Amino acid sequence: MDFTLTDQQQAFVTAADAFAREALAPHAARWDRDHEFPITTLKAAAGLGFCGLYTDPRYEGLGLDRLDASLIFERLAMGCTSTTAYLTIHNMVSWMLGAWLPAETAAAWVPRLASGELLGSYCLTEAGAGSDAAALNTRAVRAGDEYLIDGSKVFISGAGSTQVLVVMARTGGAGAAGISAFMVPAETPGVRCGKAEEKLGWHSQPTREVIFEGVRVPAAFRLGQEGEGFKFAMQALDGGRINIASCSVGTAQQALGEALAYVKTREQFGRPISEFQSVQFRLADMATELAAARLPVRQAAAKLDAGAPDKSAWCAMAKRLATDLGYRICDEALQLFGGYGYTRDYPLERYLRDTRVHRILEGTNEVMRLIIARRLLAEPGLSLE
Amino acid sequence: MDFTLTDQQQAFVTAADAFAREALAPHAARWDRDHEFPITTLKAAAGLGFCGLYTDPRYEGLGLDRLDASLIFERLAMGCTSTTAYLTIHNMVSWMLGAWLPAETAAAWVPRLASGELLGSYCLTEAGAGSDAAALNTRAVRAGDEYLIDGSKVFISGAGSTQVLVVMARTGGAGAAGISAFMVPAETPGVRCGKAEEKLGWHSQPTREVIFEGVRVPAAFRLGQEGEGFKFAMQALDGGRINIASCSVGTAQQALGEALAYVKTREQFGRPISEFQSVQFRLADMATELAAARLPVRQAAAKLDAGAPDKSAWCAMAKRLATDLGYRICDEALQLFGGYGYTRDYPLERYLRDTRVHRILEGTNEVMRLIIARRLLAEPGLSLE
Amino acid sequence: MDFTLTDQQQAFVTAADAFAREALAPHAARWDRDHEFPITTLKAAAGLGFCGLYTDPRYEGLGLDRLDASLIFERLAMGCTSTTAYLTIHNMVSWMLGAWLPAETAAAWVPRLASGELLGSYCLTEAGAGSDAAALNTRAVRAGDEYLIDGSKVFISGAGSTQVLVVMARTGGAGAAGISAFMVPAETPGVRCGKAEEKLGWHSQPTREVIFEGVRVPAAFRLGQEGEGFKFAMQALDGGRINIASCSVGTAQQALGEALAYVKTREQFGRPISEFQSVQFRLADMATELAAARLPVRQAAAKLDAGAPDKSAWCAMAKRLATDLGYRICDEALQLFGGYGYTRDYPLERYLRDTRVHRILEGTNEVMRLIIARRLLAEPGLSLE
Amino acid sequence: MDFTLTDQQQAFVTAADAFAREALAPHAARWDRDHEFPITTLKAAAGLGFCGLYTDPRYEGLGLDRLDASLIFERLAMGCTSTTAYLTIHNMVSWMLGAWLPAETAAAWVPRLASGELLGSYCLTEAGAGSDAAALNTRAVRAGDEYLIDGSKVFISGAGSTQVLVVMARTGGAGAAGISAFMVPAETPGVRCGKAEEKLGWHSQPTREVIFEGVRVPAAFRLGQEGEGFKFAMQALDGGRINIASCSVGTAQQALGEALAYVKTREQFGRPISEFQSVQFRLADMATELAAARLPVRQAAAKLDAGAPDKSAWCAMAKRLATDLGYRICDEALQLFGGYGYTRDYPLERYLRDTRVHRILEGTNEVMRLIIARRLLAEPGLSLE
Repeated sequence: MDFTLTDQQQAFVTAADAFAREALAPHAARWDRDHEFPITTLKAAAGLGFCGLYTDPRYEGLGLDRLDASLIFERLAMGCTSTTAYLTIHNMVSWMLGAWLPAETAAAWVPRLASGELLGSYCLTEAGAGSDAAALNTRAVRAGDEYLIDGSKVFISGAGSTQVLVVMARTGGAGAAGISAFMVPAETPGVRCGKAEEKLGWHSQPTREVIFEGVRVPAAFRLGQEGEGFKFAMQALDGGRINIASCSVGTAQQALGEALAYVKTREQFGRPISEFQSVQFRLADMATELAAARLPVRQAAAKLDAGAPDKSAWCAMAKRLATDLGYRICDEALQLFGGYGYTRDYPLERYLRDTRVHRILEGTNEVMRLIIARRLLAEPGLSLE
Repeated sequence: MDFTLTDQQQAFVTAADAFAREALAPHAARWDRDHEFPITTLKAAAGLGFCGLYTDPRYEGLGLDRLDASLIFERLAMGCTSTTAYLTIHNMVSWMLGAWLPAETAAAWVPRLASGELLGSYCLTEAGAGSDAAALNTRAVRAGDEYLIDGSKVFISGAGSTQVLVVMARTGGAGAAGISAFMVPAETPGVRCGKAEEKLGWHSQPTREVIFEGVRVPAAFRLGQEGEGFKFAMQALDGGRINIASCSVGTAQQALGEALAYVKTREQFGRPISEFQSVQFRLADMATELAAARLPVRQAAAKLDAGAPDKSAWCAMAKRLATDLGYRICDEALQLFGGYGYTRDYPLERYLRDTRVHRILEGTNEVMRLIIARRLLAEPGLSLE
Repeated sequence: MDFTLTDQQQAFVTAADAFAREALAPHAARWDRDHEFPITTLKAAAGLGFCGLYTDPRYEGLGLDRLDASLIFERLAMGCTSTTAYLTIHNMVSWMLGAWLPAETAAAWVPRLASGELLGSYCLTEAGAGSDAAALNTRAVRAGDEYLIDGSKVFISGAGSTQVLVVMARTGGAGAAGISAFMVPAETPGVRCGKAEEKLGWHSQPTREVIFEGVRVPAAFRLGQEGEGFKFAMQALDGGRINIASCSVGTAQQALGEALAYVKTREQFGRPISEFQSVQFRLADMATELAAARLPVRQAAAKLDAGAPDKSAWCAMAKRLATDLGYRICDEALQLFGGYGYTRDYPLERYLRDTRVHRILEGTNEVMRLIIARRLLAEPGLSLE
Repeated sequence: MDFTLTDQQQAFVTAADAFAREALAPHAARWDRDHEFPITTLKAAAGLGFCGLYTDPRYEGLGLDRLDASLIFERLAMGCTSTTAYLTIHNMVSWMLGAWLPAETAAAWVPRLASGELLGSYCLTEAGAGSDAAALNTRAVRAGDEYLIDGSKVFISGAGSTQVLVVMARTGGAGAAGISAFMVPAETPGVRCGKAEEKLGWHSQPTREVIFEGVRVPAAFRLGQEGEGFKFAMQALDGGRINIASCSVGTAQQALGEALAYVKTREQFGRPISEFQSVQFRLADMATELAAARLPVRQAAAKLDAGAPDKSAWCAMAKRLATDLGYRICDEALQLFGGYGYTRDYPLERYLRDTRVHRILEGTNEVMRLIIARRLLAEPGLSLE
């Protein structure tokens, strides 16, 4: 048992820190205000390997493990929550394609994602399905060497500005076993995007509906075998939950840091508010909750890396905890800023808006509880360490 | 002890309900998006007496009590939180002027506020002072029949679009006893506004800095005597806290109502999510917390009306409780909408943004705790019923 | 709408206050330690009418309404939680018998309960049934002019020391419609009690299993008609929930009062701990939560008195809220006493133990949520005011 | 970074598990009921090294680090919270004496503590001082080769049944710098104990006042130098906080385990309550909170072992978090048992009573917040990972 970072982890963290501070933080408020998807910055992140962190090295990924990636995303999120959250999705896409596309297709496409030349989107959610992934209606019908895809997806991050889509579609009967996964280039005829969703936050990444009408893709764009899509989706979600949890932890860390700096300078009744015991107690609780949020994320990532039998429940616990506590810490930090926290002069209100969605996506925190409970009540159950 | 509304209260509530439903709710999302201050609608509200609810009837106010006003604001907030919150400020201004201006000045000005012809802003907060009202720096110097006012105020609701300002300024020495209150017409030379604050919410009311440079007002525009300003401010805050608490309760009620409607129609795993026990438990807790938030607001208003010795502590309790619980209910309601709650297609994210500031203004909820504790520890103490 | 007590209410409250202070509080710690059921004190309470508060005046009850009774129980609980909780059960029994026994039987028995000559117990819960009242197995079979009762009941307050039992038993088929209610004198042959449960608290009232083996009671001991038992039980529970909620509110009030006195005298780091801001904040939150707990109890009682269609959901809200918040306030008060709070030198640990069960009985707080949600989701739904 | 146990850690955990299951759990209820201090069992624990886990191996301690000890205490607490809590105190005493007594004295005494032949008590707290350790009044006056000790200590675990006391006493002026530490054999003339405190829980260890009247000890019984006592006390508290936190984690783990077993068998409305979604959600939250409580304890222990500059703040965070969450988990588990949880037929009410004091002792959780905040606001501050 060892809680310290390895030298390699420390090196990545240091690089991520610098990138967050120099390339993300100075622009985050503007991206938020202008709803700008910072493509140039994402490509710059690729230069550090951040577009293929755990993508297979055969396809120019770094081949890191999920714990490493969690540490990096956490630091990046300190610079911009929303941009980092998109980056985690891109990494998921890049990794999925590297892991499950036929080797030849992968070799042609994945390096371009890992290098940031192409950006990816992940198309799972449908309007009627929400957390009920097995209920999806998008269909893919085999026609010779191709599949013909029809249907639509909602809440797709990056859609309209990305080039490569991973699409879950039904090739078989009802339920999870009938779902397959496909790579669909965004420029394929028949793919079109709806208007951008107007959201509370996550403004540096567009979110759109994606409609597929008679979209033809080669069979070689299928990931794995027919019927494996749901399994892939579930595996992707495990990692996605670690990632989004890491984004919450990083943002909360940043919020706490901003609050610490503020309370030392803000005066009320003639002295810095850091001297008020109630402020001190609140800060202490924020710090404590941050530790409580961060460590289970890392242990869950380690479980995922180790292929532990209870890894999915751990990812669910980490996501539930880190996104709830991370949001609360941002909320408390905002409160410490008083009226100023409510304005865009400070980043606190943005942290609040950006982290709010983490409690909802990649499976709502309610779905997390179902996943945790299922394992807890099963045999052999959930190892709580 | 009687928890039912009187016939008169019921009549006002019914009118407020209708106004909220017909004149506020259909436009609230647009006002929010466009940052539009709905002046026409505010004047329409005046037609129902809502611009001078507890203003002295001599000046065309309705002369209701604070409990009545709380019931009305609660209902109006169900239609638009931000607009109602501004309206409460206007009512405070209208009431203060009616209560403490010299009769002649009052007769000339207050009816125009009560009728909505003129709109008011309340200028207390300064950049360095925040919750420490006694520390304010704006000065008013007596010069013959006039006062010369210099200084600046921040976070002024309505500023730039309102005609009448109530301004707290220092006429004497340090501390609370040196503060006086003035009416300042916004068009007086030397009054100017800064740019609109960019806020998380409350978009239907502009918030600006107001700068006073060599502003001259007649001595007859002073409220009460020199040195009474702080006392007036504190009395205004008691009522202001009831009002903002009422806005939180109304918004939370609306959020719960929207959630109830949604869960009955939204399906997951083949059935309405209202059938899931976890959803039912959450709704039950929201309803229970709403009851817990609402009743103390009403009792505090009754205490204020009765001039109870512990009225200020009760107003503080009501404000702390209702704004915290109200916000939480909005947050929970948003969560029940899942990804849709995060978008502007539904009003939940607006409720969240609008109610967030209620925990901060009219004295932060931390200042409320100090007020409550002071009374609780004093003799004769705080009557908890 | 009026939050003040009527003169009559005030008079009862004053009497209850005095009784709590003089007859209950001085002995409560001893009754707790010695597991003593204070029969003499209960009879003394009867002298003030407290054994038949809402029992029909025809049978020497006071015929008060539930709101009056709530006010009284709240004050009594300030003196001894556990004894008052038993007293609420006795009142329930006394009221049920007065309301539903045949007049002649009632005339013979109820005055003896209202006068405290006889004490009552309420026999609903069975080992396998818990919150699922409709599942009960105790049977009552008609045999001529008698019923023959067989079965057993658990967690019966007062059993072994009381003379009159109200027993719910199945006279018909499965489900709620097959249940009837009976008065069973405790000395009837075939009635026997198990050993006293060892409980965390509520030590001044014995809790025992009651076993019925071939117990014969006259048909005139049946309450109402066959099949009405479940309906009576539900009505009794509505009131029982108000009562237990009132006991939690009173105990929390007492705990807060003790804490206030303590923090003014206990010194740390050279000054009374009441001067520490964190202590002040905690006290403020306790007072605020107490207000939030108390008022919904009173409104629920008023709803019950008025026969409001949503009265059961309100009773459930009041019980859920007051027992959870009441317990929390006791827990926080204990914490303010530090190590001393953990000892029997102070009453805090007793308050904690005694109020813990309030979250469980009269329907667990989880069952409360189901009741609230059911009404909330129904038409016409739950009026939240 | 590695979250798995080493082989040695696993071996110790396995041994502790077996001891908890076989030697503690079967007797814990009885020790609680009879207020029995299980000396024989403590000596048996010594046979496994559990009486000198981190005591210097020169004196027959195991010389483990604090992380190892935390893992072991966690498992032991699953068998009996109160007995394990005492054992952690004994370990602290055994370690302090081995670390700071003169070598010759240590050689004569410490092996007898490590072997369980002698049991230890730790005498820091005084009636007036509580969390303000620097304010203590017990005096030790040098008289030739001896010290003369006068004063009294309260809340001393084990007192009356232990043979070796570590006593903090003032040898110099006011404040922390005037405090020294002494070993005092309990049979020294002038040492006597008050009557056993009647406590809410922790019944398997007696808690008494210890009075020192003209007690003479050799100068060679002083730990370290004069004036080092406060420093030793603070170091002991760091470890003590890890230990008590570990006891809370272990008890909460046990409570969750009992609850999981119960909900699978307890039926309501015709099916196991484990099938109710609200029960599942609660279990999921308990498991998640347990992970959130456990990991920071382990990281804090690792910080303490590494001598990290922020170790004290981490120990405070771990203690605050684990004792609050641990208690809450026990409370929730009790609730899942319904009425049965309130009785001594199940161990839940004991878990609640035993863990309640963890939030108070070794510095209240309020003092923890001060410690955390102080470091957080200092330079270089608190590393949150």
